[in-house]
Amino acid sequence: MKELSKQLDFIIELDQLKGIYRQTLVKSDKNRFENSAEHSWQISLAAQVLHEYAVENVNISRVMSMLLIHDIVEIDAGDMFAFSSDEALAEQEDKEVAAANRIFGLLPKQQFQNYKQLWLEFENAETQDARFAKAMDRILPLLQNMKNEGGSWVRHKVKKSQVIERNKYLKGLAPKLWIYACEQIDLAVTQGWLIDA
Amino acid sequence: MKELSKQLDFIIELDQLKGIYRQTLVKSDKNRFENSAEHSWQISLAAQVLHEYAVENVNISRVMSMLLIHDIVEIDAGDMFAFSSDEALAEQEDKEVAAANRIFGLLPKQQFQNYKQLWLEFENAETQDARFAKAMDRILPLLQNMKNEGGSWVRHKVKKSQVIERNKYLKGLAPKLWIYACEQIDLAVTQGWLIDA
Repeated sequence: MKELSKQLDFIIELDQLKGIYRQTLVKSDKNRFENSAEHSWQISLAAQVLHEYAVENVNISRVMSMLLIHDIVEIDAGDMFAFSSDEALAEQEDKEVAAANRIFGLLPKQQFQNYKQLWLEFENAETQDARFAKAMDRILPLLQNMKNEGGSWVRHKVKKSQVIERNKYLKGLAPKLWIYACEQIDLAVTQGWLIDA
Repeated sequence: MKELSKQLDFIIELDQLKGIYRQTLVKSDKNRFENSAEHSWQISLAAQVLHEYAVENVNISRVMSMLLIHDIVEIDAGDMFAFSSDEALAEQEDKEVAAANRIFGLLPKQQFQNYKQLWLEFENAETQDARFAKAMDRILPLLQNMKNEGGSWVRHKVKKSQVIERNKYLKGLAPKLWIYACEQIDLAVTQGWLIDA
């Protein structure tokens, strides 16, 4: 039962992600901050619902697994706001690699290697699956902010150009979603939710 | 873009599940109640980690999809504590079917049918995939309560026989996990976290 004991330790460790809070607000729950566990749930399901828009061949089961684990490193490294400084983002990267080794390392060796590899694939965003996963992870806060009078964009004075840059994966990968995102970004500027720069 | 608009409405509607609270407590986040969105995330991942213990042929991608959507009906129907009365549980069933029609009904027709079918499969627990999904959904609160001095069992004065009955899917389906669950249930009785009846 040694393997099982490791797997159960990992599953219980996952509980910690429910206490890692992001900048996005949950409008339907008194505008509290969203945690990374519930975010991971929503984004995996969103990817499944939207995967018909991907022009490249995407293995949606792999994408969903990737999205379920993509934020687990935040248990140790914390969440970093997407529009933080370059220095802060670079420092975060080191913390996240150490976190991946510790947390996925709770699992038996083969599962550790599989999950760490899947997480690195997501981070590097070089495969089609990883790029589609990234695109999904980035369009969801846009949808949430649009339904919440600009949400985290307003509080952090985010610029239109930053949101366009962040959603660029959509352009070649899911053109219909890219067009939709651009329309929403323009609408957000009109509403005063994004700075026109 | 009519289909896309429906899909995005569904994805935004999912936000509501983050405000549906269960009886389980999140020890790592000040012992607040757990919501059904973060629970759905953890259980999907737990199923993936543990699926090697299933003796029957289980399609783990289907199981994970099933677990991601299994609680969505609670957006309208609310969460019902597992050990509620039979009358309350029967009434809940009607509410959940109506909820499935409304919420999955936000999606384009084909996706509506696919998700509703998948949800019904989970509810009916007749296929191997559905039974494994149910077994996972039921062992997780056991793990959480064992790490939290009995958690919701203690607060609701739950009996050993109720927890055994609830975890019975494991017996034929994943014998190693069944043995583990029985050991933990006995330990919970020794600790005074479950009533010995």
